[in-house]
Amino acid sequence: MKLVTFTTGSAERVGAVDTEASMVHDITEQLEAAGASGVLGAIRHWDDLRDDVEAAVRSGAGHRMDSVSLLAPLPHPVRNIFCVGKNYSDHVKEFGRSGYDSPTRSEELPTKPIIFSKATTSVTGPYDDIDAHHGVTAELDYEGELGVIIGKGGRGIQRDDAFSHVWGYTIINDVTARDLQRDHKQWLLGKSLDTHCPMGPYAVSADEVADVGALQVETRVNGQTRQSAPVSDLIFDIPELIATISAGITLLPGDVIATGTPAGVGIGYEPPKFLTSGDVVAVSISGLGSLRNRVA
Amino acid sequence: MKLVTFTTGSAERVGAVDTEASMVHDITEQLEAAGASGVLGAIRHWDDLRDDVEAAVRSGAGHRMDSVSLLAPLPHPVRNIFCVGKNYSDHVKEFGRSGYDSPTRSEELPTKPIIFSKATTSVTGPYDDIDAHHGVTAELDYEGELGVIIGKGGRGIQRDDAFSHVWGYTIINDVTARDLQRDHKQWLLGKSLDTHCPMGPYAVSADEVADVGALQVETRVNGQTRQSAPVSDLIFDIPELIATISAGITLLPGDVIATGTPAGVGIGYEPPKFLTSGDVVAVSISGLGSLRNRVA
Repeated sequence: MKLVTFTTGSAERVGAVDTEASMVHDITEQLEAAGASGVLGAIRHWDDLRDDVEAAVRSGAGHRMDSVSLLAPLPHPVRNIFCVGKNYSDHVKEFGRSGYDSPTRSEELPTKPIIFSKATTSVTGPYDDIDAHHGVTAELDYEGELGVIIGKGGRGIQRDDAFSHVWGYTIINDVTARDLQRDHKQWLLGKSLDTHCPMGPYAVSADEVADVGALQVETRVNGQTRQSAPVSDLIFDIPELIATISAGITLLPGDVIATGTPAGVGIGYEPPKFLTSGDVVAVSISGLGSLRNRVA
Repeated sequence: MKLVTFTTGSAERVGAVDTEASMVHDITEQLEAAGASGVLGAIRHWDDLRDDVEAAVRSGAGHRMDSVSLLAPLPHPVRNIFCVGKNYSDHVKEFGRSGYDSPTRSEELPTKPIIFSKATTSVTGPYDDIDAHHGVTAELDYEGELGVIIGKGGRGIQRDDAFSHVWGYTIINDVTARDLQRDHKQWLLGKSLDTHCPMGPYAVSADEVADVGALQVETRVNGQTRQSAPVSDLIFDIPELIATISAGITLLPGDVIATGTPAGVGIGYEPPKFLTSGDVVAVSISGLGSLRNRVA
């Protein structure tokens, strides 16, 4: 199932998408009848709701995809997005070489996951503009990533049990202000500017993904391929990330973990290829769709 | 005004506290009549609610403070708590000397604020136990801090206008797992274990604080004074923190900024004085009350 948050006017609605027919079926009322609100509510009550949602899709009535506006599937996350730094080995090397790794440059692979967060207000829709924040940053960069959406919360989740806590997946562009990331040492500010977390287009339930490791993360800037790697290249895989974070932190339904970015970000080039106004960044993951955001 | 979240049974109620009479006046119904929920709702609608709340306190009916249980004033924050690292110069030196500054040790003062976050699930009440998280961390430390509560949100807030966005203040113990803070490079994990953000006891409106710089932050462990410094010792003051964060991030009503900790944390000692089960940590700030949390 592919869930979306959409509008045809001003109110936020929840939809289930039939990508073959290019239709979105409004399931807002089914959710509300079950006491659930938004995609977040659907995830929280998924075991009870899933059959109703599937019936709604089969019933056929709905909107053509090109007649609605998509927001991020989780436009108001329960809290900051968990993110993972330096989690693809070729990216670790390019980041180390770039001199932007702060406070010291290092091409060594991390021995433990590097976890930081993006503020909730950075989340924006799959086709919305990325604000360049002129005057705040002069070094805007992209990071295409697989996002894991937690379904069943918990603490002390073991590796072997980790996938039973995964509701599904989405795409994240972990847009980064490199100057802020470097100058402020801790990465929160450089990762959290408004509109710097394009997400979507869908929240895709895990049953649609036969082998998450086989998913290919691809980023294009103005049509030119910059990043391309399978999720199986992750240094710390999804069970390891869930086990590490949840060892002492209770994960919540709807939590999102952005799993890290492959090699090919702007600072990986010599000289760096930063984003400028008018650039279009597309992040695609096989089976999950594509983000496509213009830099305003 | 001092607002609290409290229970006399299971339901969370909102109260206004008269500390001289040791009474808490239940204002939950006044809030609900205005469409506001919780202390967060009171902050969001404060301009409209303030007179009603003051009337409720004057009316006199209420609970004795010792008959209620206090939760954190904001037990379910809108998102992760913003936190500031290395913001008192003597603490910068002790942290640099300790070898826990990661990935490199440095006693140099930061030239820009170091901003990170604590996960929402780390928040706990002013008198609740701090979980030792045996098996996850072996190096538990305290950090007494002034917390700033944002009232009016916004982006691009200027220094001169910053205090008009402050609703008030509270006390934060930025409990830290030093081994996780060091080993994972970015600080989110080491700062976010469940119960590692005692907060309260009150959300104190800004009009009760004549001179925030004069507030004295004091931390005692088992009665022994460990930290004592005035807020005026901050390297980056409150207007600077608000201006820096809001330059590209929209601040929200109810956001909390923990402003940093003075010298005297456990790793500041040689050898380090980590917390162990049974220790009692008390953080007091003049006019804002005290946290008192036992390590379980």
